Amino acid sequence: MTLTIQTSAIQYKDKVIQVLDQQRLPHDEVWVISTTPEEMVEIICSLKVRGAPLIGMAAILSLAQLAENGADMSEIRLAAQKLKQARPTAVNLAVYIDRVIHAAAQADDYRAEMIKAVQAIFDEDVQLCARVSEAGARLIQEGETLLTYCNTGSLATAGNGTALGVIKRAYELDKAIRVIACETRPVLQGGRLTTWELMKAQIPHTLICDNMVGHLMSLGKIDRVLVGADRIAANGDVANKIGTYSLAVLAQFHGIPFHVVAPYTTIDLHCPSGDCIVIEERPAQEVRGGWSPAETPVYNPAFDVTPARLVTSYILDSGVVKRVGP
Amino acid sequence: MTLTIQTSAIQYKDKVIQVLDQQRLPHDEVWVISTTPEEMVEIICSLKVRGAPLIGMAAILSLAQLAENGADMSEIRLAAQKLKQARPTAVNLAVYIDRVIHAAAQADDYRAEMIKAVQAIFDEDVQLCARVSEAGARLIQEGETLLTYCNTGSLATAGNGTALGVIKRAYELDKAIRVIACETRPVLQGGRLTTWELMKAQIPHTLICDNMVGHLMSLGKIDRVLVGADRIAANGDVANKIGTYSLAVLAQFHGIPFHVVAPYTTIDLHCPSGDCIVIEERPAQEVRGGWSPAETPVYNPAFDVTPARLVTSYILDSGVVKRVGP
Repeated sequence: MTLTIQTSAIQYKDKVIQVLDQQRLPHDEVWVISTTPEEMVEIICSLKVRGAPLIGMAAILSLAQLAENGADMSEIRLAAQKLKQARPTAVNLAVYIDRVIHAAAQADDYRAEMIKAVQAIFDEDVQLCARVSEAGARLIQEGETLLTYCNTGSLATAGNGTALGVIKRAYELDKAIRVIACETRPVLQGGRLTTWELMKAQIPHTLICDNMVGHLMSLGKIDRVLVGADRIAANGDVANKIGTYSLAVLAQFHGIPFHVVAPYTTIDLHCPSGDCIVIEERPAQEVRGGWSPAETPVYNPAFDVTPARLVTSYILDSGVVKRVGP
Repeated sequence: MTLTIQTSAIQYKDKVIQVLDQQRLPHDEVWVISTTPEEMVEIICSLKVRGAPLIGMAAILSLAQLAENGADMSEIRLAAQKLKQARPTAVNLAVYIDRVIHAAAQADDYRAEMIKAVQAIFDEDVQLCARVSEAGARLIQEGETLLTYCNTGSLATAGNGTALGVIKRAYELDKAIRVIACETRPVLQGGRLTTWELMKAQIPHTLICDNMVGHLMSLGKIDRVLVGADRIAANGDVANKIGTYSLAVLAQFHGIPFHVVAPYTTIDLHCPSGDCIVIEERPAQEVRGGWSPAETPVYNPAFDVTPARLVTSYILDSGVVKRVGP
């Protein structure tokens, strides 16, 4: 059995992993090669690959590569540990690694089992994206303007995406929607990646700075907010890209539905509430850019937590869910 | 009578106007020369000079220069019309120009009267900044963390500033404050200019992206919000830098005091409410930067309106004012 993977942002063929360098999008479409788990850790940490599901899938692909190159289980376990620590907030990284290691550990032919497990995770993610997209698209009404955040499309998943998957599916179904894409400082996943995907899909859209959301909402120009998630706690609290919480507060203030779109793989039942989620802090230079004083102190959390009470509904692969109790 | 002006960001001496190019701060301190009203219009439109009071003062300095160079009243009136149209939202530009033209129109020696009027406006702004700073500093409690937005310091006024003036005065009075500066996309006046002023004043501060405000508020890390204003309507509605409205909503949601700091010259009694304030839209390229697709559609309003009901109090030169009726 050989493993072959092809998504919009990651490829695996003949033991070679290629990752579309998302830091260089939209201007350059450059694929970087990963030959070792250490290289994959660097690729993940430097955000060349990003998006909660895709980070997890990039990591397990690196483990599959290691196995196909003849590593034994102790080497694979060591690599798994390193990969798990690359980024702390998204749940998929640890969960997918555990799933693959668990499959290997129970098997006689651990290589074959790992490859099977990796293939299954990729295949499943494509299916899950299709299901959340379908469930969400049914919610979208003709003529709505949908606000989305960060990038939650085919650059963040193996499939069509989560929140952006819903948007693309609604558009496929001929609903005359418009999209407002927030640029999503400091890494600009919205300004660089979501605009790129929306242009490819020819969906009418407008790019704004994150601080313009309230103004647009006050003018009645946003009908619905759709965001992804990096981890959903058992009580429904949602860790997602920094700024999501502000969007949720603004949406509630203006009476605008706020939806979290995610497959079940984003739900962490071991995590009772948002308080338990580790929020990654990233380098100051991402915020300073080239324009702020080089010594100016910076706070740069990559994520925030939106409490369940601010979420109108969760668009899951199993359907749309609304919390009705505390 | 000769006119000589010296502020942190603008100089006039021997009929030469020099403007500190705020687009090149903090890395380069370059002064550009304006020799005609047409050049000053370009300097204002390209944000080399910015800040509601300072834009107005730069414009009247350009008129004074024209008068000192021998222009007659009809030429001066024509230049005044061009300068007035440079930017629509801040009230000071039109008001200061009208004050200077009015003074000239009623005088035998219109040059002398214009110079006197310009000098008076600069002198008055320094005094007004001192008074709002003093009034606001009394509100600030020991140990508070103050969030501020855009740049409202000595780069935006002839004096010490408005919201940032309050912060600087509180620090001078030995209150152990900390400042959170929002970068203020798309032009980054917070990230480039406010950090620069805070570093010069050695006030402890942290730079964040605008989308991090809600997260910090939810963690209880912001005690008070202080912003400036470009125009305050008669009913208390406030036009200010885009993103101010979102801050006001977030502050109210978290029960955090939200103060608008401005001298009386920012109040426009001819404007009954925020609905009457023209919101300037600026070029898409400011939002796209170098990183978004070159063709992606953009919405780029430079200001928004915060309704009076979201303002805890107004810190004016005449003291701190709270609205108690509709």
